[in-house]
Amino acid sequence: MKIKGLLKQLHAIDRECCLLEKTAAILQWDQETNLPPEGVEERADQLALIEGLANERAADPKIGRLLAELGFDSADPSGSANPSGGEALPPVERDFCRALRRRYDRAAKLPPGFAADMARAGSLAQAAWVKARRKNDFAAFAPYLGTMVDFARTRAEYWGFTGGAVYDGLLDAHEPGIAAEEIARLFGPLRERLSALLGRIRDKTAAGPEAEGDRSFLNQPYDTERQARYSRDLMENLGFDLRRGRLDSSAHPFTTTLGFNDIRITTRYAENNILSAIFSTIHESGHAFYEMDISPDLRGTCLAEGVSMGIHESQSRLWENVFGRSRAFWEYQFPRLKAIFPEQLRQVSADAFYRAVNRVGPSLIRIEADELSYSLHIILRFELERRLFSGDLPVEDLPRAWRQSMKELLGIEPETDAEGVLQDVHWSMGSFGYFPSYALGNLYGLQFLKRLRQDLPDYEGDIARGSFTAIRQWLRENIYTWGRRLDPADLLFKVTGEKLSAAPFLEYIETKYTELYGL
Amino acid sequence: MKIKGLLKQLHAIDRECCLLEKTAAILQWDQETNLPPEGVEERADQLALIEGLANERAADPKIGRLLAELGFDSADPSGSANPSGGEALPPVERDFCRALRRRYDRAAKLPPGFAADMARAGSLAQAAWVKARRKNDFAAFAPYLGTMVDFARTRAEYWGFTGGAVYDGLLDAHEPGIAAEEIARLFGPLRERLSALLGRIRDKTAAGPEAEGDRSFLNQPYDTERQARYSRDLMENLGFDLRRGRLDSSAHPFTTTLGFNDIRITTRYAENNILSAIFSTIHESGHAFYEMDISPDLRGTCLAEGVSMGIHESQSRLWENVFGRSRAFWEYQFPRLKAIFPEQLRQVSADAFYRAVNRVGPSLIRIEADELSYSLHIILRFELERRLFSGDLPVEDLPRAWRQSMKELLGIEPETDAEGVLQDVHWSMGSFGYFPSYALGNLYGLQFLKRLRQDLPDYEGDIARGSFTAIRQWLRENIYTWGRRLDPADLLFKVTGEKLSAAPFLEYIETKYTELYGL
Repeated sequence: MKIKGLLKQLHAIDRECCLLEKTAAILQWDQETNLPPEGVEERADQLALIEGLANERAADPKIGRLLAELGFDSADPSGSANPSGGEALPPVERDFCRALRRRYDRAAKLPPGFAADMARAGSLAQAAWVKARRKNDFAAFAPYLGTMVDFARTRAEYWGFTGGAVYDGLLDAHEPGIAAEEIARLFGPLRERLSALLGRIRDKTAAGPEAEGDRSFLNQPYDTERQARYSRDLMENLGFDLRRGRLDSSAHPFTTTLGFNDIRITTRYAENNILSAIFSTIHESGHAFYEMDISPDLRGTCLAEGVSMGIHESQSRLWENVFGRSRAFWEYQFPRLKAIFPEQLRQVSADAFYRAVNRVGPSLIRIEADELSYSLHIILRFELERRLFSGDLPVEDLPRAWRQSMKELLGIEPETDAEGVLQDVHWSMGSFGYFPSYALGNLYGLQFLKRLRQDLPDYEGDIARGSFTAIRQWLRENIYTWGRRLDPADLLFKVTGEKLSAAPFLEYIETKYTELYGL
Repeated sequence: MKIKGLLKQLHAIDRECCLLEKTAAILQWDQETNLPPEGVEERADQLALIEGLANERAADPKIGRLLAELGFDSADPSGSANPSGGEALPPVERDFCRALRRRYDRAAKLPPGFAADMARAGSLAQAAWVKARRKNDFAAFAPYLGTMVDFARTRAEYWGFTGGAVYDGLLDAHEPGIAAEEIARLFGPLRERLSALLGRIRDKTAAGPEAEGDRSFLNQPYDTERQARYSRDLMENLGFDLRRGRLDSSAHPFTTTLGFNDIRITTRYAENNILSAIFSTIHESGHAFYEMDISPDLRGTCLAEGVSMGIHESQSRLWENVFGRSRAFWEYQFPRLKAIFPEQLRQVSADAFYRAVNRVGPSLIRIEADELSYSLHIILRFELERRLFSGDLPVEDLPRAWRQSMKELLGIEPETDAEGVLQDVHWSMGSFGYFPSYALGNLYGLQFLKRLRQDLPDYEGDIARGSFTAIRQWLRENIYTWGRRLDPADLLFKVTGEKLSAAPFLEYIETKYTELYGL
């Protein structure tokens, strides 16, 4: 049968592309965890080659021809919306063709060499960023940043997003189907109510620092080998299957999928900061569970990954913050942690620990931010990115705009650009439109939770008993199993019957912190 | 200039081929050291793809055309001897073209799909071997082994080796330019004199076990984390540069080159066997030093690797046995080892330790064999392989032939095939003609040492002072720096002015063990 033959050819190309992508991921994982210092240069050559070969497969003109024959034309000039077609196909093959169409359009619309040029420019810009941050010298970085803005804009234009829609094109690459206007609509109330809540907490703790509880027990050395032992114990308790993955350490924690049964997370151990390892481990485990629980039917295809950055972050943040920073969680976990660090935690109660891991204190640095103010860091970046791409904000003015927004949103101001506009790596790599997914993840996550609570009313009791089986099963069956089959908005609607909304997240945050700080 | 253009094209293809080979090596290294158990299947797919792409590059018909234009025809039908040509080229480019011609002929003479078919059959045979060894069931493995013999024979025939020369073709793949007849000539006196020496030692220890010295201190638990600490200390003392490499652990120790500045070794730690980790670490360090000290001018090309298995083993064995099992070595190292294991080694002297690591006791298992009898294990395999490919020995008769040879060469006989013909993985992978390199390495190594001793008369004094700088420099300048530029015989002649000979090795062994056992 003809359709079967066409699909078989598509799957063969896709299979090779996916194997190459995984191979690149292995090279990267090894670079972050194991690579001897002098090996960096040649590793970059290896990576560029393998990524180039993967890109070739993704943009293979044969894919375009085969998809057209199956009825999946690139209907939308942007190639970004849901391509439709192939009514005669089984549903999963239709989803496969849709995903392939999307990947193909993204890759094939770029002229030959563009991706490699942008990657090379990104490497240079990243090196310049490292230096500029160390020297607190934004001016030295600005030209590189300008180049990356131009690359990102040009790429979005190739994809078919022009004029005012360029930033939409960048967002869409990370969160398919979402536009800046909708994000602005969601971030409006978030901005206002989180800032207000932050202000109330600030007033309260200024009036009497006892509102914060005692955190001094955190300022002790915690042996890193014991931290590693606890991290492993913790992830296994959450349900991480070590036959299908690993835990290692790296400078910046991450999750990576090296194969359908090879999903690895990293954390970092600092003797003077035990919370860093703990919450990185939980966060990355959340990402890993998503990847581990995709339906085996999708194995080895482009559908076998998380659908978007935002949905992915919804899971890492649900596990890290909503579960991992809850009272129930530490009811079960604290005695286990105490058993590993008896000297340090002798005088500490589970409740004191719970309060300590939820302390709100506006930070200059996004990755050190608490659960409440984190979204404000994202809103700041979203607003600046939007202005950068509307042409309203020249690159040179970023430091000033950054300081102004920090003051407005978080009530604090960085003294140096290193602690301000230069703190994140993303822009140096040309990753614009990526930041919003972090905050969208918070919103998706609490919408999913609202529904989970209806199905599993005693889920907090489960957590307090250290049992994640039912929760994980619910997440698997409702979210994880789908992989890329459903677009984010469709997945959200299927699970919750709702459109994306900030309400459940705001309600959760306001309830939790009003109680915690006795407001 | 035209020649420059041709060379540039050749280097571009070679560069990609080398990067792909290194990528495959990374996938394999990770498989041995890190891969979660469930990830094995997909890793095999990734590896097959990358190796296939590397093979495509190696057999790219463009290489044949470019080489022909440069005057490097495949003169010899076997493609195995030194192709000559390119008199107008700089010497290093001439060596590059020669090496490329060789690799190209090996790859391009195979019909499409042959390498992949053989790899697949090897995977099946290896799985069957694992099972057969566990169940001590040679009959179940025999058909797979027969298939691999056929594959190896067919491949040698494609390469141009026919009839009685088939086994020469297999040897040549591991040790360029050597033939079975020459090996037989070298192994003759080895066989005779090593067997005789072994007999004399056996008689002596049968008469009075005190000739062996007390080894009971080895039968204690040695904490594996401390073993790891000592191994790292040891390799650094030998001169291993950890900015350009790593030490990890795996079931079977190995060395792998993942980049010009990324050369990794593994060892294994067993609480009840401290010698295993120590001598594996030294052995693999020897391999690594060779790879680390190839001239940087050859970086990224097919010349940037050790020239043959035999020369490689000459280095690992020189470091492991000649240096690492010498009195001088333990004069310096033993106090360091004792500092890490004070309880276990309190009563032990450096001399007692030296004697313990040189105990001769014929073993059924090759990888557990002592320095003296090791070569006899190899001679046995060489003789059986030669008969297998001359048609003189059917696969089914291997177990009987094995037992008979063991009896004859080592004076012991395995009770099971698991401890006999099924002990090694090599044949299941189709690696015939590989074993002899281990013993050839012993011969090369002692010939090199004879020359080194002339240039560095006090090299043993250096070892006793824990200083390997001059030794390493000598090895680098005389051997390592060349990479694949010189064929094994040419390298040997350049360094020693001699042809391959068993005399220096035999003299070394006989002197050492006559003294050790007071014969």
